[in-house]
Amino acid sequence: MSSVDKQLENLKAEITNELPRDISVSDVKYEGPELVVYTRDPKRFAKNGDLIRKLASKLRKRITVRPDPDVLSDPREAEPKILNVIPEEAGVTDLDFHADTGEVVIEAEKPGMVIGRHGSTLREITQQVGWTPEVVRTPPIESSTVSNVRNFLKQEREDRRRILERTGRQIHREQLSDDEWVRITTLGCCREVGRASFIVSTPETRILVDCGDKPGSEDVPYLQVPEALGSGANSLDAVVLTHAHLDHSALIPLLFKYGYDGPIYTTEPTRDLMGLLTLDYLDVASKEGRTPPYESEMVREAIKHTIPLEYGDVTDIAPDVKLTFHNAGHILGSAVTHFHIGDGLYNVAFSGDIHYEDTRLFNGAVNDFPRVETLVLESTYGGRNDYQTDQADSEQTLIDVINETYERGGKVVIPAFAVGRSQEIMLVLEEAMRSGKIPSMPVHLDGMIWEATAIHTTYPEYLRDDLRDRIFHEDENPFLAEEFNHIDGGEEERQDVADGDQAIILSTSGMVTGGPIMSWLRHVGPDPDSRLVFVGYQAQGTLGRRIQNGWDEIPVNDGDGRGRSNTLKLKMDVETVDGFSGHADRQGLENFVKTMNPRPEKVLCVHGDERSVQDLSSALYHDYNMRTFAPKNLETFRFK
Amino acid sequence: MSSVDKQLENLKAEITNELPRDISVSDVKYEGPELVVYTRDPKRFAKNGDLIRKLASKLRKRITVRPDPDVLSDPREAEPKILNVIPEEAGVTDLDFHADTGEVVIEAEKPGMVIGRHGSTLREITQQVGWTPEVVRTPPIESSTVSNVRNFLKQEREDRRRILERTGRQIHREQLSDDEWVRITTLGCCREVGRASFIVSTPETRILVDCGDKPGSEDVPYLQVPEALGSGANSLDAVVLTHAHLDHSALIPLLFKYGYDGPIYTTEPTRDLMGLLTLDYLDVASKEGRTPPYESEMVREAIKHTIPLEYGDVTDIAPDVKLTFHNAGHILGSAVTHFHIGDGLYNVAFSGDIHYEDTRLFNGAVNDFPRVETLVLESTYGGRNDYQTDQADSEQTLIDVINETYERGGKVVIPAFAVGRSQEIMLVLEEAMRSGKIPSMPVHLDGMIWEATAIHTTYPEYLRDDLRDRIFHEDENPFLAEEFNHIDGGEEERQDVADGDQAIILSTSGMVTGGPIMSWLRHVGPDPDSRLVFVGYQAQGTLGRRIQNGWDEIPVNDGDGRGRSNTLKLKMDVETVDGFSGHADRQGLENFVKTMNPRPEKVLCVHGDERSVQDLSSALYHDYNMRTFAPKNLETFRFK
Repeated sequence: MSSVDKQLENLKAEITNELPRDISVSDVKYEGPELVVYTRDPKRFAKNGDLIRKLASKLRKRITVRPDPDVLSDPREAEPKILNVIPEEAGVTDLDFHADTGEVVIEAEKPGMVIGRHGSTLREITQQVGWTPEVVRTPPIESSTVSNVRNFLKQEREDRRRILERTGRQIHREQLSDDEWVRITTLGCCREVGRASFIVSTPETRILVDCGDKPGSEDVPYLQVPEALGSGANSLDAVVLTHAHLDHSALIPLLFKYGYDGPIYTTEPTRDLMGLLTLDYLDVASKEGRTPPYESEMVREAIKHTIPLEYGDVTDIAPDVKLTFHNAGHILGSAVTHFHIGDGLYNVAFSGDIHYEDTRLFNGAVNDFPRVETLVLESTYGGRNDYQTDQADSEQTLIDVINETYERGGKVVIPAFAVGRSQEIMLVLEEAMRSGKIPSMPVHLDGMIWEATAIHTTYPEYLRDDLRDRIFHEDENPFLAEEFNHIDGGEEERQDVADGDQAIILSTSGMVTGGPIMSWLRHVGPDPDSRLVFVGYQAQGTLGRRIQNGWDEIPVNDGDGRGRSNTLKLKMDVETVDGFSGHADRQGLENFVKTMNPRPEKVLCVHGDERSVQDLSSALYHDYNMRTFAPKNLETFRFK
Repeated sequence: MSSVDKQLENLKAEITNELPRDISVSDVKYEGPELVVYTRDPKRFAKNGDLIRKLASKLRKRITVRPDPDVLSDPREAEPKILNVIPEEAGVTDLDFHADTGEVVIEAEKPGMVIGRHGSTLREITQQVGWTPEVVRTPPIESSTVSNVRNFLKQEREDRRRILERTGRQIHREQLSDDEWVRITTLGCCREVGRASFIVSTPETRILVDCGDKPGSEDVPYLQVPEALGSGANSLDAVVLTHAHLDHSALIPLLFKYGYDGPIYTTEPTRDLMGLLTLDYLDVASKEGRTPPYESEMVREAIKHTIPLEYGDVTDIAPDVKLTFHNAGHILGSAVTHFHIGDGLYNVAFSGDIHYEDTRLFNGAVNDFPRVETLVLESTYGGRNDYQTDQADSEQTLIDVINETYERGGKVVIPAFAVGRSQEIMLVLEEAMRSGKIPSMPVHLDGMIWEATAIHTTYPEYLRDDLRDRIFHEDENPFLAEEFNHIDGGEEERQDVADGDQAIILSTSGMVTGGPIMSWLRHVGPDPDSRLVFVGYQAQGTLGRRIQNGWDEIPVNDGDGRGRSNTLKLKMDVETVDGFSGHADRQGLENFVKTMNPRPEKVLCVHGDERSVQDLSSALYHDYNMRTFAPKNLETFRFK
């Protein structure tokens, strides 16, 4: 008998012992990090509201209780009973019964009302019908990404359960080594922005953190070296994704092409956004005539292998590693990632990309951990002069620019990342129009901005508290303001907009490296009354950075993007309004570190250009007396 | 056609073009780093003495010319002709014809006389008989190691040629990567003494430098991590061995058990000493009831795969790496190892173990390189107080100790490494007796000391200039002094010595971790008139270190080392005479670095305990303004 089977047998005995006599345990299994307890008495189990919590705390495991398939009631009988328990205002839009696991997935407009106070409604459902309910939100704005992901996961449910079981057994395998060490290997984003990727390794376990591309470059993380995938992609135990931006996520699906077959840990919104962005990444590559590094099938594999975690969940992901995500304030679902290694041996946190102050969209990044010995810190704005304007001032500047442009009859074109900056700017514009600071006018959203916004409204728990509350009340959802128009009519619609009255256009890509922004430059670029306004970081090597630096002759394609190449003379004004970045500025980065308690012993400054990482590393060393490093790619640091 | 075949075809055309018309080229092949040119006109080739040198310099390759097997003369006719060419005083002891390669191996007491001035006698041999002569020395003291190695290599000649050909094609393969970086990974001997092991890697090439054990511990290098052998032992392109001491060599044969099948680069004496010491290592392990990590067959594999290089030979060992060995002054054949990477891209030198000043045995370590950006420096005596007595003073102390012990009728027992310190002490004793500073008395050599001494006399070119010259004149060979007695009669002979008159005993192991020194402690230990004298470094965890620190109750086995365990009360005096170390002291290490021109930009201080590496690293940083590091095991540093 394997050590995991022995472990499960012991757990079954222990649980049986803990439960009242009239509650049977028919099976106990690992599914990913969860312990699933099957019972022939689900109703009695649910009656005792505290039972699961007590078991979880006693066994120090995350526990799910499911009815033994033998005792399931007929869905046709269960459905009306369930709908009877749930208040009508919850707005249930779908019920989906899964006989293999005894789960019923309830999609509702107001999931909170399905859950009830401390889960009371859920327990009531189980008491009534025996099934284990699982709740998801009906997106307030229809999102094809969310519905595609949900349908796909429904369809792959069996395969997924096999993956989860295998992963569960891997996580709870016996520890083999009595050696102790903790290492980080840098595979990308050191002394550069882009291709974020790290390996965290112990004698027992190897974890890949992020796997991104590099905007404006063909460089990819150093996956081919022996300490990355050299001994096979399945030499990794887990992949952890801090957020969905392509410079962190683009090559995650590639791992499955290389034969990886293990879990990806990330938040639920990051999973969906990763799906959206990587499929677009493939699309852009093929439109630009490049061979995409993997096929869309691999994106689906990545989604199928994702184990979503919520902020604050302490989760076993290996025999010697516990993972916890915390809000990073950068984009939807972005996470500061904390690893607790061994039994109190060592703690490492990766900031991922962070915004330290609250923004309109998000609460500021969490930096409160019980212990962190080493912090891997992003340094995008780590340079000695990288202080950004306060957002209130930036918003005023943007409003002034819009008003000026409006008065001279021009249009405002804003290149923006689909995910994050677009929604932040949308909130600024919505409020400015509502309060009369700028005239009401159409705000056209092009590229994936609309879809990304729909995903934001699907996961309001990940947004700033007051924004979340507004979205819960449909009539106050700012993203539903009537000025917002989804450009879904292609070139024709763009031409109409260009020929029409004053308007604001938000379009991808955020660094002008391709996408519909190229069309907008062609349509609006020659108009000296219009304005191009940068609101986000422009990486070196991107067209956005060049235009910022004064280039006004830019290469464009005719028509549908497939025609011959031409040069366009840019006559519109170019403005940069900083302060909207999703990244902490120099002060924010210092504050993030300074207010940690306890402070880390070591800080690795990464994800910034040479000067930024050096400046930040040296400042943290001098001001806070910590050991700081500005690693190169391909180095390995040992901490224990 | 492969790129190597194309390369060889071009080389053949170029060589044909360079040679006079009457000299044909029938084939051109790589054998390891050498280019072998087969000709049907070996005699004409040899006539033009400068031809090979000119070709080598033109092609920038090491060139060997061999007769096409078709044109070889009959060995029965060739033999008297060869003996006729060589002066009688050369003392030829064997001629061995190899028809497969057209080589004749000539073993002689005075190889220099077989070679002749600038190789004139060798060329004369080829002119007479067509065969290509190769010369080896007849050991002045019979060495079973040397004769075993030579016989084994003779027997495995065909297999070896296949290995060399494959290696040659590997070395000259097309470079695939256009990326450029240079890294060092530490697998052992960082912040500790023992288990020396490093990986040097580029996008193209991975080289293992040393692979030793750790005296007084079961720790081995971290070979199992992905960046070492994680993707298979054959992911290494080459293994380089700096010297034969077990803390650098013990686990080299293990690589072949793991499936390595590539070359080992080292000096010829290191190859033979490695054979001697690793076989003994297996023997000791099995005597102590431990399972040896590999079988003696693997030692033979290691010897078969060795490509011996001489000091100063610049050798291609990979498409992007040139290796050069330089005298390290530490033990016979020990090498400071210089890697030139890429076409002027980067230079790394590993000091290996060094002695900076001249000793009786060796010239001081070479530190003169055209360029070295990074130096990996041993730090055994790198501590701030690790200054050693001058050897002249140490010798006087030893002489005083011997005279005092002699006067009170006792014996002097000196634990010593078989290789290095023993021969140094032998030279001191021989001179002291010859000049009357101590009375003439028997010096008993136990363990492998006699055999190791025989190997020293086989390779006098690797000894200090004046010692080399003395050995060339048999009557002055100090190692042949009549006082030296080889203990080859086991316990009985030891008992006789113990019962007899005053004597000096040199015995292994040097750190009292096993071997015949344990017997000597049992025989002589209880005699308060005798003395135990330490002349070498005693590592932490060894019995030698404990006795040095005052332990006088030591565990011994009865009789043949297989009996029950007992405790022995040590009554003999214990003395430590430092200054005989094979390692540079703190001053020597600083001088080694200080007198380099140009000095390295970076120094990695390794092979010393925590305090020594930290002290040396900090001193070199402050005094010479270099970037210095005290790496941990399992780290990776990137230099380019």
